[in-house]
Amino acid sequence: MITGKNQIGNTLSAKGDKTFTTFNPKENKENAQQFVEASQEEIQQATQLATEAYQTYKQISGAKKAEFLNAIADEILALDQTLIDVYTSESGLPEGRAQGERGRTVGQLRAFADHIANGTWVEATIDTAQPERTPLPKVDLRKMLVPLGPVVVFGASNFPLAFSTAGGDTAAALASGCPVIVKSHPMHAGTGELVAGAVIRAAERTGMPNGVFSNLNSSGIEVGAALVKDQNVKAVGFTGSIKGGRALYDLAAQREEPIPVFAEMGSINPVVILPKAAAERSESLAKTYAGSITLGAGQFCTNPGLILGVKGEALDNFTNQLSEEIVKIDPNCMLHPNIARNFQENKERMLAQEGVEVKADYQQEVASNYGRQTVTTVSGDTFLSNPTLHHEVFGPYSMIVQCENTGQLEQIVAKIEGQLTGTIIAEDKEIEQHPQIVSALQNRVGRIIFNGVPTGVEVCPSMQHGGPYPASTDSRFTAVGVNSIKRFARPFSFQNWPNNLLPDELKNENPLGILRLVDNQYTQQEIQEAVTSLS
Amino acid sequence: MITGKNQIGNTLSAKGDKTFTTFNPKENKENAQQFVEASQEEIQQATQLATEAYQTYKQISGAKKAEFLNAIADEILALDQTLIDVYTSESGLPEGRAQGERGRTVGQLRAFADHIANGTWVEATIDTAQPERTPLPKVDLRKMLVPLGPVVVFGASNFPLAFSTAGGDTAAALASGCPVIVKSHPMHAGTGELVAGAVIRAAERTGMPNGVFSNLNSSGIEVGAALVKDQNVKAVGFTGSIKGGRALYDLAAQREEPIPVFAEMGSINPVVILPKAAAERSESLAKTYAGSITLGAGQFCTNPGLILGVKGEALDNFTNQLSEEIVKIDPNCMLHPNIARNFQENKERMLAQEGVEVKADYQQEVASNYGRQTVTTVSGDTFLSNPTLHHEVFGPYSMIVQCENTGQLEQIVAKIEGQLTGTIIAEDKEIEQHPQIVSALQNRVGRIIFNGVPTGVEVCPSMQHGGPYPASTDSRFTAVGVNSIKRFARPFSFQNWPNNLLPDELKNENPLGILRLVDNQYTQQEIQEAVTSLS
Repeated sequence: MITGKNQIGNTLSAKGDKTFTTFNPKENKENAQQFVEASQEEIQQATQLATEAYQTYKQISGAKKAEFLNAIADEILALDQTLIDVYTSESGLPEGRAQGERGRTVGQLRAFADHIANGTWVEATIDTAQPERTPLPKVDLRKMLVPLGPVVVFGASNFPLAFSTAGGDTAAALASGCPVIVKSHPMHAGTGELVAGAVIRAAERTGMPNGVFSNLNSSGIEVGAALVKDQNVKAVGFTGSIKGGRALYDLAAQREEPIPVFAEMGSINPVVILPKAAAERSESLAKTYAGSITLGAGQFCTNPGLILGVKGEALDNFTNQLSEEIVKIDPNCMLHPNIARNFQENKERMLAQEGVEVKADYQQEVASNYGRQTVTTVSGDTFLSNPTLHHEVFGPYSMIVQCENTGQLEQIVAKIEGQLTGTIIAEDKEIEQHPQIVSALQNRVGRIIFNGVPTGVEVCPSMQHGGPYPASTDSRFTAVGVNSIKRFARPFSFQNWPNNLLPDELKNENPLGILRLVDNQYTQQEIQEAVTSLS
Repeated sequence: MITGKNQIGNTLSAKGDKTFTTFNPKENKENAQQFVEASQEEIQQATQLATEAYQTYKQISGAKKAEFLNAIADEILALDQTLIDVYTSESGLPEGRAQGERGRTVGQLRAFADHIANGTWVEATIDTAQPERTPLPKVDLRKMLVPLGPVVVFGASNFPLAFSTAGGDTAAALASGCPVIVKSHPMHAGTGELVAGAVIRAAERTGMPNGVFSNLNSSGIEVGAALVKDQNVKAVGFTGSIKGGRALYDLAAQREEPIPVFAEMGSINPVVILPKAAAERSESLAKTYAGSITLGAGQFCTNPGLILGVKGEALDNFTNQLSEEIVKIDPNCMLHPNIARNFQENKERMLAQEGVEVKADYQQEVASNYGRQTVTTVSGDTFLSNPTLHHEVFGPYSMIVQCENTGQLEQIVAKIEGQLTGTIIAEDKEIEQHPQIVSALQNRVGRIIFNGVPTGVEVCPSMQHGGPYPASTDSRFTAVGVNSIKRFARPFSFQNWPNNLLPDELKNENPLGILRLVDNQYTQQEIQEAVTSLS
């Protein structure tokens, strides 16, 4: 059952005096359960406990950590319909989405379990000693990735499961060997508590140290800020708005010991429609994009908020067909009244900008908190001269920019801010005629798509989810897929270390049988020579 | 010949009105050549040219970039004795060191050339399409590392070649596909200009775009600050003081678009001598450490500035023997009068702290700018209570902390700031009795050494040169070795991209024959299936 308390390691705790509730946007009413915000004392308890747990947890084998991650997946599934009911009551999202997201969350946990089970992920690299080398003997050096320390994960409003309590960031951090303190998202604190309970049961069942996981409630910014400033915390994972992510990044950068913040923030995911493609298949494109823009009430970070084309009949046809198609779709409930209100306000600000024309605007009556989809157009010149038009409108909104020509289109692509994705819609051979546009788009994004839609983020090793700022605060890492583990690990070298005291990943015998780079060759072989100590 | 001008791409330029000279610390006099500091206009020219060069350079093959790096190495060697003479006249370092450092610099360039020649370094990762997958078809996704954009490299005072103009940071950035703008170190601007000329000749000879490399003179902080704030710049490499590195980190973090700064900063490189080892071989340890502390006038970032032991007869013996040995060594000339003066001032500040006892202090007369080595002791309690004692004294200085017992030793290790290295000196089996000390030390360092000295940084894949802050600003990367290329690259995904337009590293045919992760299996095989486009 949901208690409304904070999970401080294995203990439920409610010492604070501030409470809050979650909200059912579909029924447009508050949910009954009161949640108790974490106090400063509880925050410190959680981070201190995490630091203590780290001393043990960092040394636990990949196989044991994999057991833990799989047990979390099992415990989440065991929550069964209770979890689905709480999820839908706190998000307004339909049951099918809840089930799908649960599947993804469980899948991520199991993918990380597989990834770390044998130890290959630590990138074991060995250079053996050459005691006879002149002028200086060469020492024995062995390197692998080790965990950074306690990680704070911020739950995301738009993914109550897959990017929250036991979502991608938590799975990556736990897989790397870092304890996790979750700053639960206030919009779905009940879902968060249920999942936190599942994590704790899995930790106890698989013998993980107390403090490997904590879950803190908060309705404002104080708990998150205190966590990021806490000296026990060594890294931060965040998914959300540019304003929120940048605030955390700034706090972390201003610490006496700065720490990495991996914030995956806003994106308008530009889609470039080249002229021939617009002429040849505007109708099918219009249908596809009507669906992509409205998917999940437009509340995906890969939502296509900006469409770039060359003005003319073909683009006009596409614009008209998209406008017709998009108003045929029933609006969806948004996550929370605040999000619905922000959507409406941001959209109105866009519509009030000079030169913005409304092409489609869902007009029928809808229930409270539903987001009505809108499509606008603007000229390339206007877009270039007004930075407000470059901002994200979180929700089912997209703007079509009518460029003068492909030269202006390239100029716009080169000027937009960093993005998670960029898409090129083109006929065969047409894309080859515009290498500058492709090159400019590549400079601005983390993932580039040919003849598709940006929504739909496959969880696999080749996925890059992240991009130049402000898509994320560090484009050198991904937030999705098993490689996201690298955000929370650092390389560490052992020099002339006794073989029996080395981690298994680096021992001569290669007991895990992993692929290692040994003297510049990839091999799964053991190392024959005895290590010579040069004391 | 040396002109004193800035290298803006392929053009020599001297538009500024501020000039400065370098200094010969051995002869204690200014060198004759005037250097012209870069103007704001020249800074902008260099960064703009680098951005233009990036559009071409990012697409040049690994094999061609390898040719460029090898040509730089050849051109540096062709400078022959001229380079050695200018180097020694600007650093006070002996000719043997100049030759050794040139060898290392050339070796680094060639190692990066080998590393990128075939393309394996981009970590090509491919997940092929599954058009029949249900409920949703799977797209084709292919990921590789791509260069970030123009990189600013700050020359280091203590490595005029290996960590400066064409040193490790420059080699890594150029290898990744990033143009480089060097902020030349004012203490060795002549060495910098010679090497910059070598880079430009290599660039011209191998057909690299104008702007792939620039070298800017500066005597103060303005040029560096302007470069870090310039919006064309996408990353920074720095080796130097905590104060300097932190200032650049803060500037970069405050940008509208924050950029990564990889600063490798100060370190006191703690050495733990366990009781049995101190008892068994204090004499040989004393000789070894007298050499390590005074090597290169103590001007290495891996200089052992802190020795931790348990108080008692064995540690006293070691202290006395180290003190005897270290004053037998002739002092060396330091890099610059400012560095010699800072050494003297910092040392005096340490000696003035309550509880610090001088055990060895070279007393004989020395020439100007020579650094006289000093060894001090302090109790564990005093060390714990006075943070000033934790600071680096850049030069031949080391402090021995006499801990009450191994418990206090562990407490001290857990409290010290992040370090590049940590060393454990122990007898066989003795180390196994102190897992807490080893664990605590691992949390604080990037490289841990058994029965050796921290000085001597092998350039190889398994080297980690970097560590928790303030050893470096991002412990997730190394500043030495071929993996340092990862600081300047980001993962990038292509979704359903036409095979003929993919980079060679990701094409079905695998024309480079590199090792790739394809559908979760490492293989050098080509991909048979045609890519299905899901439009």
